[in-house]
Amino acid sequence: MTLDLLGPSPHEPRTGIRGETVPTVPSAEPAAVDVTALLERGRTLATPVLRSAVDRLAPPMDTVAAYHFGWIDADGNPAVGDGGKAVRPALALLSAEAAGATPETGVPGAVAVELVHNFSLLHDDLMDGDEQRRHRDTVWKVHGPAQAILVGDALFALANEILLELGTVEAGRATRRLTTATRALIDGQAQDISYEHRERVTVEECLEMEGNKTGALLACAVSIGAVLGGADDATADTLERYGYHLGLAFQAVDDLLGIWGDPEATGKQTWSDLRQRKKSLPVVAALAAGGPASERLGELLAADAKSNDFDSFSEAEFAARAALIEEAGGREWTAEEARRQHAVAIEALDEVQMPDQVRAQLSALADFVVVRKR
Amino acid sequence: MTLDLLGPSPHEPRTGIRGETVPTVPSAEPAAVDVTALLERGRTLATPVLRSAVDRLAPPMDTVAAYHFGWIDADGNPAVGDGGKAVRPALALLSAEAAGATPETGVPGAVAVELVHNFSLLHDDLMDGDEQRRHRDTVWKVHGPAQAILVGDALFALANEILLELGTVEAGRATRRLTTATRALIDGQAQDISYEHRERVTVEECLEMEGNKTGALLACAVSIGAVLGGADDATADTLERYGYHLGLAFQAVDDLLGIWGDPEATGKQTWSDLRQRKKSLPVVAALAAGGPASERLGELLAADAKSNDFDSFSEAEFAARAALIEEAGGREWTAEEARRQHAVAIEALDEVQMPDQVRAQLSALADFVVVRKR
Repeated sequence: MTLDLLGPSPHEPRTGIRGETVPTVPSAEPAAVDVTALLERGRTLATPVLRSAVDRLAPPMDTVAAYHFGWIDADGNPAVGDGGKAVRPALALLSAEAAGATPETGVPGAVAVELVHNFSLLHDDLMDGDEQRRHRDTVWKVHGPAQAILVGDALFALANEILLELGTVEAGRATRRLTTATRALIDGQAQDISYEHRERVTVEECLEMEGNKTGALLACAVSIGAVLGGADDATADTLERYGYHLGLAFQAVDDLLGIWGDPEATGKQTWSDLRQRKKSLPVVAALAAGGPASERLGELLAADAKSNDFDSFSEAEFAARAALIEEAGGREWTAEEARRQHAVAIEALDEVQMPDQVRAQLSALADFVVVRKR
Repeated sequence: MTLDLLGPSPHEPRTGIRGETVPTVPSAEPAAVDVTALLERGRTLATPVLRSAVDRLAPPMDTVAAYHFGWIDADGNPAVGDGGKAVRPALALLSAEAAGATPETGVPGAVAVELVHNFSLLHDDLMDGDEQRRHRDTVWKVHGPAQAILVGDALFALANEILLELGTVEAGRATRRLTTATRALIDGQAQDISYEHRERVTVEECLEMEGNKTGALLACAVSIGAVLGGADDATADTLERYGYHLGLAFQAVDDLLGIWGDPEATGKQTWSDLRQRKKSLPVVAALAAGGPASERLGELLAADAKSNDFDSFSEAEFAARAALIEEAGGREWTAEEARRQHAVAIEALDEVQMPDQVRAQLSALADFVVVRKR
């Protein structure tokens, strides 16, 4: 299965009308940036600190957390985990560099953001009843609900600890930003839960929820390194604006992958978001579009909400719903939304003074977010 | 039912061997201190700030939190709640005064500690399956498990927010102490859960768990106001020592009330801790004591652990277990432990320089903790 969510990749040169080569996404010297290496650097610098932070947890929480991060399997044997894309750590290190500090300055910020992100995954998976994450059973499924709650709490506390033990004024400011982002994260999950019980959700409500659930913490990742590196609040705010819109672009792509993603790549089931009746952007946009496909989709989803044998739906039934979403324009609108948010993010980036190389790297990471397949 | 856990109240003068009047608990001028007024002052200053903090939560979390705090009932109507004893807010204000600051300086600390305390109640009640708290159904029972998780998370984040938005170096130090206490709280809950699955727990393990679950946050309440008022770390550490041992005394009394407390006063069922198979101090001490009653108790509890109809046990069956605990010496040992921890707390208090009046008030609060009936 080839997956081309947003048209040709921005890194694949297109031929213009006069035969010249044109990039489709405006980026500062994208060819000069190795995104894979940037992500790898984030992982390499942050993971050892993250692991030693998790090692501080009292048993059995250390083991449960290690399972969650994919460092051990359910039997406690070492595992080579899929630690995720590691976009946030890469951003936190670049954030420090944007303020003229070393990438290492951003490491406690990268680790704190990862801890908060994983705290929210542990709790959200339990609240949502999700049984799989990153190709594996979720923590509540393996270790029980109490451990999922407890270890989530512990990771949240650890995030603050990692920052505050730096003992600097900057660390206090960074923790405050992380706290604001965490509150938004929790607001977003509250909205997500309440929307599940509603028949209709507007596009605006969906975007607000996604801004809270994804935008706020990505924004914090992009400011936290700079704050630790001594950046002022105005600079940090502008960096957060880049991160927030990047987060919305990221989530729009996630919503596309949640319906049309390749299960091999995403680690989720086919039609994953449809199975969970998620009112994600493509669904909400399709329902708002009007027209025959939109109306037929609305009727089907309303019936699904009351159906008792939804869980035994065939692949064909989900495929039919996905086709209606696409026909009503929900897929194309969401792809376009990802491009819009990407453009706004890049605009914010241009407002901050930073080394050219760092700007090019942040820009390339933004490109990566909208073309990724997982 | 009259309940006299620890012998005559320390405020009731006893007659000595030479006919003189002797207090049973050494306190600095206890007669001069009105503990009820101290607790009331804590409530009066902290509650409005707590309520406006909770008002920041997005719906429906604000409503769920208001229910938890007893400000509204399950239908959303205003209620005159039992907000608990409010020992922690009273301590946080005295803590500020111990450092020579105004009681108002301690208010954000008092509110942050209350938020963390209630975050832990929300999550612990869910993890433990407890259906009642303060004479009312618990949040997970009324609003569902997801809301209990979510609102607990939100209160935890709010605690950090309240402190960090002060924007001072002292606030950063206070947040760090609160984070350390929260981590201990979580460690204690992890131990509590793991002990439930074990046949035997030592007295030392039980004390360590209670130090984490109760001592650490009470310690933080006693240092946080002082830190916000500019106290140095050595002073804060000594104040925490007072608070930690006060917490252990508090928990020993709680453990006595959990078995022999008056349900009317405590708001819990008769034999509450026995019904929940809690390995609290009286149980653990009785099992460790040896002798016929201790051995018989051990056999009974081992059989209970495997019993399928434990939930239908009669009052008489719990009463028999309580009598064995008392006969084996578990009740008296725990009462003695409360007195020991009280004495250590008062000793620590003597190591800190503070106004005489504040010392007398902290001392009187310590006395209150060991003679309370709820």
